[in-house]
Amino acid sequence: MRAVSVRDGEVVVEEHPDPEPGSGEVLVRVRAAGLNGADMMQRRGLYPAPPGAPADIPGLELAGEVVGLGPGTHRFRQGDRVMAIVGGGGQAELATLHERGAMPVPESLDWPEAGGLPEVFTTAHDGLFTQARLEPGEHLLVHGAAGGVGTAAVQLGRACGARVTATVRREDLRERVAEFGAEVIAPEGFEARGPFNVILELVGAPNLPTNVKALATLGRIVVIGMSAGAKAELNLGALMGNRGRIMASMLRARPLEEKALAMRGVERNVLPLIERGLVKVPVHSTFPLERAAEAYEAFAGGGKLGKIVIEFG
Amino acid sequence: MRAVSVRDGEVVVEEHPDPEPGSGEVLVRVRAAGLNGADMMQRRGLYPAPPGAPADIPGLELAGEVVGLGPGTHRFRQGDRVMAIVGGGGQAELATLHERGAMPVPESLDWPEAGGLPEVFTTAHDGLFTQARLEPGEHLLVHGAAGGVGTAAVQLGRACGARVTATVRREDLRERVAEFGAEVIAPEGFEARGPFNVILELVGAPNLPTNVKALATLGRIVVIGMSAGAKAELNLGALMGNRGRIMASMLRARPLEEKALAMRGVERNVLPLIERGLVKVPVHSTFPLERAAEAYEAFAGGGKLGKIVIEFG
Repeated sequence: MRAVSVRDGEVVVEEHPDPEPGSGEVLVRVRAAGLNGADMMQRRGLYPAPPGAPADIPGLELAGEVVGLGPGTHRFRQGDRVMAIVGGGGQAELATLHERGAMPVPESLDWPEAGGLPEVFTTAHDGLFTQARLEPGEHLLVHGAAGGVGTAAVQLGRACGARVTATVRREDLRERVAEFGAEVIAPEGFEARGPFNVILELVGAPNLPTNVKALATLGRIVVIGMSAGAKAELNLGALMGNRGRIMASMLRARPLEEKALAMRGVERNVLPLIERGLVKVPVHSTFPLERAAEAYEAFAGGGKLGKIVIEFG
Repeated sequence: MRAVSVRDGEVVVEEHPDPEPGSGEVLVRVRAAGLNGADMMQRRGLYPAPPGAPADIPGLELAGEVVGLGPGTHRFRQGDRVMAIVGGGGQAELATLHERGAMPVPESLDWPEAGGLPEVFTTAHDGLFTQARLEPGEHLLVHGAAGGVGTAAVQLGRACGARVTATVRREDLRERVAEFGAEVIAPEGFEARGPFNVILELVGAPNLPTNVKALATLGRIVVIGMSAGAKAELNLGALMGNRGRIMASMLRARPLEEKALAMRGVERNVLPLIERGLVKVPVHSTFPLERAAEAYEAFAGGGKLGKIVIEFG
């Protein structure tokens, strides 16, 4: 099979041995695989694949058809459309994964949408609901809302009955994020729009002191991105005063059982919203496998709204 | 009635009008009322009473007999022994409080123990179980374990099946804290004793960076004290790496319904342990009301293990 590889920081397409499904695993002919910030970090050698994931093929999500069944599988049949987050190896013509880590693809989604859904919607769902337990009527702030996780979080927050405020640095993207259901503002002065019950932090450390001040009583800050920096100041007195919580999380390092639970959460809470048309997977552009390097360049360039997805013939 | 008051930083005993129980309230003849760090702060004007609590009489906890019942009460009868946390006004011969904010006093407790139980055990129980959800087999670290909340937390952690490590700055108190069931160490170098599933932070900001490093995957840091400082450094990358949580809390500012829930938690999880003799309320010394100023001096002097309690004749 052909797959994306990184050689000395260059994105190339190479031949690899076909993988074979082990016990409990399905073999998937990948049709689409979204790019994520982690792929950019991995390309720079900063974010190695966790144990058990292919170290030499990037890709944290995929969608495709089941073309092989390992011993003991029962959730899927040949030809079923599935999508999943994976620890690595998603950007390949074939991939194996445990059947409990896969989700069915709703009929309404095409391949690029399905290939761009798992990582950002699982991250947003896990952050907002499993971690922060966002509730109807609460006020949600999404920092860095023009990214993939951001647009997913805005839509999920809106769909669950929360009021959503979103910060977007690029002025030219604000109107499009607003169409997903948020009141969109510049990052400066967001404190005045609070208090917020839940703050989804996709930017990083510089926001933290103001996040704590802008928190409602019993508010929760969920940190799942820190592109703008990791070292933050934290005023414990302010956090005690509003009895706040700071929760930090990442998906990639989780073991199978936790990823499988996260998939069940998406199946239960997100896929029905997609089937009813209440939540969309925005796709910015697609690239065929042989142009994977261009896809990486497009992602690294930033300023896009929607997923960049590699398609497989 | 007589009560403790603070006049220009001086602790005095003065006559006050007797309080009358309102709807849903009981009138309590106070027999014992423990001192807490918040009383010291309030004496210095730093921690005013929340709305609805007597502003001129300190005291966050009390134990005594029910001597009056307001309209609509049904939980207690005349003569019942009760104890409670209150927003203020505990250090008085008479106090009123909502019946749902009071707990029955186990027979095995004498008055000083009952008067010194509510604040520290409710704080420790809330922090370890309601906030951090400490579980059997987990490793708990208690920072500042020689204080009232600390000794309560060590005992509760041990009783629930956790392994307990405790830091105590004063060498002369370490052995006594160890008797409550903890492995007691100096604060320096605690990271090497981890990883910890739950860290109860009773000291403050200086510990936070190392707390984050010493956390186990999915670990929780509960901040309920910050005598050593409020401004902390927080490495979000480290917190994301172990998918940790920082929870900050305080009891005093909570509304009635939350305090009542906290009391139900203590009734359910703590009082049975006290009745079975598994958990003790250490009392360092008692002072009669007329010597309240001496009680405050003794508390402010520090270095004691166990509660300092004002007794009422």
